[in-house]
Amino acid sequence: MARPVALPQVVRTRADLRDALAEARRPVGLVTTMGALHEGHASLIRMAHADNATVLVTIFVNPRQFNERSDFEAYPRDEAADVRVCGAAGATMVFIPPVEEVYPDGFQTSVRVGALTEPLEGASRPGHFEGVTTVVAILLTLAGAERAYFGQKDAQQLLVIRRMAADLGISTDIVACPIVREPDGLALSSRNVRLTPQQRAAAPVLRRALSAARARYDAGDRDAEILRATMQVTLAAEPLAAPEYVSCADPATLRELDRLTGPALLSMAVRFGAVRLIDNEPLS
Amino acid sequence: MARPVALPQVVRTRADLRDALAEARRPVGLVTTMGALHEGHASLIRMAHADNATVLVTIFVNPRQFNERSDFEAYPRDEAADVRVCGAAGATMVFIPPVEEVYPDGFQTSVRVGALTEPLEGASRPGHFEGVTTVVAILLTLAGAERAYFGQKDAQQLLVIRRMAADLGISTDIVACPIVREPDGLALSSRNVRLTPQQRAAAPVLRRALSAARARYDAGDRDAEILRATMQVTLAAEPLAAPEYVSCADPATLRELDRLTGPALLSMAVRFGAVRLIDNEPLS
Repeated sequence: MARPVALPQVVRTRADLRDALAEARRPVGLVTTMGALHEGHASLIRMAHADNATVLVTIFVNPRQFNERSDFEAYPRDEAADVRVCGAAGATMVFIPPVEEVYPDGFQTSVRVGALTEPLEGASRPGHFEGVTTVVAILLTLAGAERAYFGQKDAQQLLVIRRMAADLGISTDIVACPIVREPDGLALSSRNVRLTPQQRAAAPVLRRALSAARARYDAGDRDAEILRATMQVTLAAEPLAAPEYVSCADPATLRELDRLTGPALLSMAVRFGAVRLIDNEPLS
Repeated sequence: MARPVALPQVVRTRADLRDALAEARRPVGLVTTMGALHEGHASLIRMAHADNATVLVTIFVNPRQFNERSDFEAYPRDEAADVRVCGAAGATMVFIPPVEEVYPDGFQTSVRVGALTEPLEGASRPGHFEGVTTVVAILLTLAGAERAYFGQKDAQQLLVIRRMAADLGISTDIVACPIVREPDGLALSSRNVRLTPQQRAAAPVLRRALSAARARYDAGDRDAEILRATMQVTLAAEPLAAPEYVSCADPATLRELDRLTGPALLSMAVRFGAVRLIDNEPLS
């Protein structure tokens, strides 16, 4: 018989969150999400549960980080299912604020990170990172957690948030968590459910392209342009895949490399119709 | 015999500040300054001392909030004298960081407040408020104080910081403190020492202009243009004074008013040679 899962406490206002945190056992681990929770999120919550006495999950579809209104509106929402996932993975409380509790009346503050937000996702999605850093600064501040868990799948986002937290003196430790994949290699994403069956069948090409470049790296190749070309060639063989960028960059600055003399980050964004997928592979 | 004044503990790094605060009695009151402490700052420190078990003063001449390099370089600095003022007014600890402890290597984050920063000081000093909000966000975050004390003299700065703290979920209570004036009405400012004797003699014209407008308000005048003109006329009678702006604005939004139907904020910036002075008077 399956063990019954305790549902976490749900809070919806800044004030109720403050009260709940005032009584929470320390340390607190934070997982910020936009809902549509999948096994990738569950793995973050389980990691937070392993390290902390209290696990706070936030569910907020942040309008400020979508650069296309249609993407914001199409973003999947199912609160009851999300709360069950949180509980099953070990969350103690879930913060599900309405927009006005995150951005109160008259809100007009933004948090911006500079050079790290310019290439890759930043170049493809104007305003995206300013939306992310603003909401994450708010959530980190409201939570006051000892640790916050972010997925390596959004590698640039992880770097940007780490930079922001360090710059602003936010004492929360930013913990990177490994990518969770489907058996065929596709990285879990809330957007995967929007793929048609044909697109879904084609989507593992991202992982294959990263693996092909990694194979050349493992074989000793240190020419970044060859690694990028290897990814491009693999992607080009898949007619449903429309690559937006492929990158072989310095993993600290995200500047494109010529030759690899240390660690590097392979990454890409690929469109399948209206659905945009990203993936990456650190080399070191 | 004067009572000997205990010198406060001086800390210079984020890490030492964190350690000192971990042992500090609560609540903590914060006063952020750029040094060159005068009786206005001392009044903030005394107010913090009256309300809190620990008083933290920060002294940091913030290069990011000067829009003129010459103003930054001319800004007066005397650490030993400042620490004595802090101690005499009741400070427990003083944070005097070098630039790299406020803006660590690779720093690239900025905090910006929108519409409230556009008129008045924001229009006259491009980039000024972004420098202020960025450094104050960092200092509020590092301090984690229950209360922070800001002078009403920088009325727009006070509004902007209050807005930023509310927007970002910073739980520190922002406390407004009254303007401290010389006997002749000149508001205390670290820049006053840079006035020539002739300019110093002329500088109380700011206060006289505000008082003239207040007298019309007290007599029942509710036409904002007349109040602004009253200030302009008083300032125009002083040949050493070069007004930059005079304002009669909504005290919540800082938009210029036509007619006063509720509270208002009279404010002005006036140059005396290279020295720029501001003053204001709330009407309610």
